[in-house]
Amino acid sequence: MSPEDGAPGHSQAPRAAGPVALLAGGGALPGLLAEALIRRGRPVRILAFRGFAERALVRRADLVVDLIDYKRSFAALRSWAPAEVVLVGPVNRPKPGAFMGALAAFRNREEIAAILGSGDDGLLTGVVRVLEDQGFVVSGIDSLAPELLAQSGQLGAVAPDAESRASIAVGLAALAALSPFDVGQAVAVCARWIAAIEGPEGTDAMLKRVRSLRSGRRLRAIHGGVLVKAPKRGQDLRVDLPTIGPRTVVRAAAAGLRGIAIAAGATLVIDPERTVAEADRRGLFLIAVDEAGAFDTAPGIDAAGARGAP
Amino acid sequence: MSPEDGAPGHSQAPRAAGPVALLAGGGALPGLLAEALIRRGRPVRILAFRGFAERALVRRADLVVDLIDYKRSFAALRSWAPAEVVLVGPVNRPKPGAFMGALAAFRNREEIAAILGSGDDGLLTGVVRVLEDQGFVVSGIDSLAPELLAQSGQLGAVAPDAESRASIAVGLAALAALSPFDVGQAVAVCARWIAAIEGPEGTDAMLKRVRSLRSGRRLRAIHGGVLVKAPKRGQDLRVDLPTIGPRTVVRAAAAGLRGIAIAAGATLVIDPERTVAEADRRGLFLIAVDEAGAFDTAPGIDAAGARGAP
Repeated sequence: MSPEDGAPGHSQAPRAAGPVALLAGGGALPGLLAEALIRRGRPVRILAFRGFAERALVRRADLVVDLIDYKRSFAALRSWAPAEVVLVGPVNRPKPGAFMGALAAFRNREEIAAILGSGDDGLLTGVVRVLEDQGFVVSGIDSLAPELLAQSGQLGAVAPDAESRASIAVGLAALAALSPFDVGQAVAVCARWIAAIEGPEGTDAMLKRVRSLRSGRRLRAIHGGVLVKAPKRGQDLRVDLPTIGPRTVVRAAAAGLRGIAIAAGATLVIDPERTVAEADRRGLFLIAVDEAGAFDTAPGIDAAGARGAP
Repeated sequence: MSPEDGAPGHSQAPRAAGPVALLAGGGALPGLLAEALIRRGRPVRILAFRGFAERALVRRADLVVDLIDYKRSFAALRSWAPAEVVLVGPVNRPKPGAFMGALAAFRNREEIAAILGSGDDGLLTGVVRVLEDQGFVVSGIDSLAPELLAQSGQLGAVAPDAESRASIAVGLAALAALSPFDVGQAVAVCARWIAAIEGPEGTDAMLKRVRSLRSGRRLRAIHGGVLVKAPKRGQDLRVDLPTIGPRTVVRAAAAGLRGIAIAAGATLVIDPERTVAEADRRGLFLIAVDEAGAFDTAPGIDAAGARGAP
């Protein structure tokens, strides 16, 4: 939706020279993105959501608001006249009701029902739509700071074996088959056999399930296995970006997996240095692959200086 | 594979006039199938697996053997010269090793590795293949006693609402998309949004997951939801037949779902009378649908006199 679509009530169109406005939830990512943007010479404004944004971010934020206080949020955004707005950092799976007020103020009931009924992606897509209705340009990390995303390649010291590569291909194919559906972005595949598909419980809970399956009767005899994480084909990365971090590696190791394959150019690695170090220490491979499971032989992540870790 | 492929060691070809040999695991189904076959005037021989088959079945069995005692099993099968053999009743997700001996006796190592590596379906497919190698005709409940499978229609007193029917269509489409993969036969869909896809943990554990998701933050605001259960397209129903029963209804109700849709002609309803009664009592719909989610308006199950339950 272009700014010209102009829903009633917005007054200031964004200016190309304006700042990047971060609507910041939890975790380290909002801070990392702010730094990446500053490195690129872009002015930054931070709107931090109280109770979600980390303390360090709250300290440097231009405004701290309650998630449901959409009036203050929109007033601030308008006064900043940002060139681009980005949603960054989880707001920890809020109840849809948290957005209800904001949505209700700008869109009609039928649309809200459709948005709320269409799952998680639908909900955040609704927020993006409201922002766009108001004339804001909503961008994603993938366009604002692509260096934060994993680049094709082997990120750690361990290389995937042939069986793992076969399992990765199965996982990528299964995720591609599920692309039309609003469902998880991860699968666990053991010996080319799908052991778990991620639902709204998230990757960590899915890996816990694989771990308990393995200690049950079923997977005991099946060694290895991989975690495959990739966005749906055609997924709006402004709304949902597949993410892994050190904890993902720890959980994958606990689930008995041999490694992790993520979608190159479309997956965020939180704290890449520690993530790679954890993988190396536990003997797991960590690779960023294309849709067919192929990857470059050159090292991948370098934005935050990873790969250097032993 | 036809009997003419003749692996070494088998001597007696099956006779069309021979009995149906039931290789019977746990649950009520082996007994129900035996009765259905007797009603059809077919002679029946029962080989019950010790520790799996129910006591009542063990009492009427022609032979009771340990699962791993493949030599006695094959000797009995040969002496019975069955017209058809059917695998019926779960052997509770045995460790692949349990079949290892049987497989090893008849097929080469590479084939065994491929079979064991290809998951649950692959494992049972391997057993079917071994039986066929030995010249036996392996049949399924769907051909031997189709009256035990749910027929298209509304099975209970409650009809699905429009939203549930939309969710059923989403669930069927997702299962169809996953058909090429060896993964679960069930999904839970809430307001057209996939809340869970069944993995090797089984339907009950998946429903438990939906229940815990709902008590978490995510599904709280989303009402209803359906369980959709259907075989993969092209699935060998001799090897794996989607099954529901009274417990499935209880778990679906506990997960906050509004009803259950199963694949007409390809889903077994254990104890249909009690299953329908549980659904009616809890206000859940229970329907058997075609691949597009449509169903006949005439009542479905009648084999065991269900539908009569209030």
